[in-house]
Amino acid sequence: MTHQFDTISFLSDFGSSDEFVGVVKSVIADIAPHVRVIDLVHEISPHDVRAGSLALARCVPYVPQGVILAIVDPGVGSSRRAVAISVAGGTGIFVGPDNGLLAAAISLAGGAEEAVVLNNSKYQLVAPGNTFAGRDIFAPAAAHLCLGVPLGELGDQIDPALLLPGVVPLPREADGGLQGEVTWIDRYGNCQLNVSADDIAGWGEQIRVVITNVATSERVVRSLRVVDNFSQISGGLGLVVDSYGMLAICVDRGSAALELQLGSGDLVAVSPDTPTAQTITTNVHIGRKN
Amino acid sequence: MTHQFDTISFLSDFGSSDEFVGVVKSVIADIAPHVRVIDLVHEISPHDVRAGSLALARCVPYVPQGVILAIVDPGVGSSRRAVAISVAGGTGIFVGPDNGLLAAAISLAGGAEEAVVLNNSKYQLVAPGNTFAGRDIFAPAAAHLCLGVPLGELGDQIDPALLLPGVVPLPREADGGLQGEVTWIDRYGNCQLNVSADDIAGWGEQIRVVITNVATSERVVRSLRVVDNFSQISGGLGLVVDSYGMLAICVDRGSAALELQLGSGDLVAVSPDTPTAQTITTNVHIGRKN
Amino acid sequence: MTHQFDTISFLSDFGSSDEFVGVVKSVIADIAPHVRVIDLVHEISPHDVRAGSLALARCVPYVPQGVILAIVDPGVGSSRRAVAISVAGGTGIFVGPDNGLLAAAISLAGGAEEAVVLNNSKYQLVAPGNTFAGRDIFAPAAAHLCLGVPLGELGDQIDPALLLPGVVPLPREADGGLQGEVTWIDRYGNCQLNVSADDIAGWGEQIRVVITNVATSERVVRSLRVVDNFSQISGGLGLVVDSYGMLAICVDRGSAALELQLGSGDLVAVSPDTPTAQTITTNVHIGRKN
Repeated sequence: MTHQFDTISFLSDFGSSDEFVGVVKSVIADIAPHVRVIDLVHEISPHDVRAGSLALARCVPYVPQGVILAIVDPGVGSSRRAVAISVAGGTGIFVGPDNGLLAAAISLAGGAEEAVVLNNSKYQLVAPGNTFAGRDIFAPAAAHLCLGVPLGELGDQIDPALLLPGVVPLPREADGGLQGEVTWIDRYGNCQLNVSADDIAGWGEQIRVVITNVATSERVVRSLRVVDNFSQISGGLGLVVDSYGMLAICVDRGSAALELQLGSGDLVAVSPDTPTAQTITTNVHIGRKN
Repeated sequence: MTHQFDTISFLSDFGSSDEFVGVVKSVIADIAPHVRVIDLVHEISPHDVRAGSLALARCVPYVPQGVILAIVDPGVGSSRRAVAISVAGGTGIFVGPDNGLLAAAISLAGGAEEAVVLNNSKYQLVAPGNTFAGRDIFAPAAAHLCLGVPLGELGDQIDPALLLPGVVPLPREADGGLQGEVTWIDRYGNCQLNVSADDIAGWGEQIRVVITNVATSERVVRSLRVVDNFSQISGGLGLVVDSYGMLAICVDRGSAALELQLGSGDLVAVSPDTPTAQTITTNVHIGRKN
Repeated sequence: MTHQFDTISFLSDFGSSDEFVGVVKSVIADIAPHVRVIDLVHEISPHDVRAGSLALARCVPYVPQGVILAIVDPGVGSSRRAVAISVAGGTGIFVGPDNGLLAAAISLAGGAEEAVVLNNSKYQLVAPGNTFAGRDIFAPAAAHLCLGVPLGELGDQIDPALLLPGVVPLPREADGGLQGEVTWIDRYGNCQLNVSADDIAGWGEQIRVVITNVATSERVVRSLRVVDNFSQISGGLGLVVDSYGMLAICVDRGSAALELQLGSGDLVAVSPDTPTAQTITTNVHIGRKN
C-alpha cells in the first residue's frame, strides 16, 4: 500500500495542560509511523467552535497537502456526526466533528467534494468510554487516510451539502459604513475585525470607529488612521492592515484589547471619517453617542 | 549499528515558558537524528510526581514502541537515582528519576524487566552544573538507547524489585460504597475519580456522591446519574464514564471543578442511591451530613 | 539540489494561544518537507527582545547544525532589517530580525561570518499585509536555506560588523563584590543571576546577597550558602550553581521568585560573607542597609 499523505495538520481545544494532544499523536505514530504532525494550535478556548473555525480558516491557505485534523467537539459521543471530507481533488481531507468547525476552512479550500461519516469501527480504537473521539475515532481515521485507506472505507458516504454550515460573521452596511465585530484577539492584544482592507477601499486613511462592548453596552468612538505596521501607529491606537488583509485595532508594543477591554464578538462599526473629526484623533466618547 | 528505536515519548513538568523541552529535544536530535520525539505533556505542575505518574499511566497504553522519557524530578542532582528500565521484552524502555514517577506506568506495561542506574558518564553531557539532568543525563541516555546502545552499557544493573514504588491511590470500601478521590482535573474541569465503571457495576444508574474538600472540610452530597457522554447530562452535574473507563464528575459544556471548587486529591465517596433519594437529584447539602 | 540542512531550531514570542507557530511550521513543511523543526521556546514575553536573546543564548550550545530561526520582532514590517547570518564555517545560519535578538547567541557561536538582508522577494510569500514576517519572510528564508539555496541568494550582503549589538548584562565590581542582576526567572521560580560560579571562585561557600527590587526600591539582605543542587538547600533560600554554571537564587521545591517577589532585571549584589555573618544565615533586613 502506497502512502497517500505524509502530513497531518492538527488543531484542537485540547490545550497543553493534559496529555490529550500527546495521546492523539501517539495513536497516529502507532498506526502511520511515517506521518509528520504539524500542531496548528491547541489553545482554542474549551468548546469554542466559532474561535476554532476562524483559526482553522486562517491556517488553511498555508497547510501542506494532506489531512487536516480539527477537534473542538463539545458534543463528543452524542449524536453529532464524526466526518471526513475531501477537498481540492482529494489533495486535502478534513477530519473532525460535523458541528460547523470545518465549514469556513472547507469553503476556503474550494468546497466539500466527498464526505463520509466515520462509522466503520474497523478503523477505530476500542475504548472503555466514548468521551475521547480524538483518540479513538479521529486520530485513527486521519492516520489510515495517510496510509492510503480510501475515504469511502472509513464509513458511509453522506451528501456534502448536508454538512452543518459554519457561523462566519460577515459585516453589514450601516450608517454610511460597515457594522462589524471583533473576530480574534491575538496574544499581543491585536483585535482583528471581520472587515478587510478591501472593504474600506477609497474611504481614505482616517476611519471613524464605534466600539460597543457587548457585555456592558459601553460605547467608545475614535478616529483611527489606517497603517501598514505597528510602528506606524504614532502613539495610542491604530487600524493596522494585518497579515490576512483584515483591519485590526492595535497599539504599538502594547495591547489594544487590554486598553479597550475588548473581547471576541464585541461590535465595531467603521465608516469614513469626516475632515473635521480627522483633526481630533484622540477624541473619545464613552456611553451613548449624541 | 542498527537503530533500536525511532520514537521517544516525552513527559515532564518542564512547562512551556522556558526552553527546557526544546533543549532536551536538541540534545536528542544531535545524538540520534533519526528519532521522532512525541510530546505527551509538559505542563505537569512543578514537582508534582503524583500527577506526572498518573498522566504517564494514562498515556502508556497508547505510546508507540520505543523509549518513554519521563521527568518530574524535584530531587535532581541529589542522591535519588537516574534510571532506565526495560519492559515488555525490551520493546519499551522507561528513562527517568527513580522517585515513583514511573512505577504505575511500568506496572501497566507488564512490570520492570531489567533496570540500570544511569551512571556511565560516557553517555552523559559534561555540564557546569547538575540541576538539568533532563539535558545532561536523561536525554543522552534516551537517544543512545534509540541508537542501539544496550541498556547494560548505560550504567550498573540494579534489582528492579528495589525501584521506588508509586503512590497509586486506590478506593476502599466504606459505608456500603467506595471511598475514592479526585485523581485528575482536566482542562475542561472534568474531575476523574479513582473509581471505575466496573467498580460500580450493578449499582444502578443513580449514584450517591459525597464530596469532601480536603482544604476546607466542606462537604457536598449529591445524587448523580451515570451517563455515557457529556450531552446526556441534562443540566447540572453528571457522572460520565470517561475515555479511560473511570467515573468523572462533569458538567455539560462547563467545568465541574469550578462549580464544586474541586481539586486533585479531594475525597469523593460513591454508593448506590436509594430509590427515594433518586427523585431529588438536585438536593445539595453543604456541611455535615444529617 | 542537495539538501543543505535538515533541522530548523525555532524560538519566538508567538506563544501557544494562536496559530502563529503552526503556520510558520506549515510554510516550512510546504517548501522543505524534509526539515524537522525543533521548538526551542515560544513563550518569550511579547516583544521582550532581551529575554528572547538570553534564552537563545542558553539554547545555542545545544542546537543541532542547521538553521536557527528566532523571532521576537516588535518592529515587524518597519525599517528594522530582516537578516540571515552564517556562523561556524556555515554549519549554522541564524534567521531573524536585526534588533539585537540574535547578537548574544551569534557571539557564543563564534561570531557572524556572512550576513544578508532578506530582501529578495523571490524567496518570500506574497501576503495581503506585512505584520507576519515569520510566515512571509523568515520561514521561507529558513526553509530555502535548508533546501540548499545559497545565503547570498536571499538578499543583499551586509557588513556583519554593522548588525545591531545585543544588550548582554554584565556584572560590575562594587563594594568588594559584584553588582549583578536577575536575568531569568524560570518556571520553578529559580532566579538566575548574571554572575557565574567562576566569578566567585575563592569567595568561600557563604555569600552575602543584597537584592534590590527595581520597582519598589525595597532591599533585602541575606547570607546564602552556595550549593550544587536544590536538595542541599536546608530550608529557605540558597545559591545554586545552575546547569549553565551561573548562580541562581533558589528554594528547594518552592519558588524563590515568589518568596522574594523578584523579577527579571532586579538588582542583586553578591560579596564574600564575613565569618561573623556566616553564623546568622537567616538574618534578614528589609529596607535600607544599616
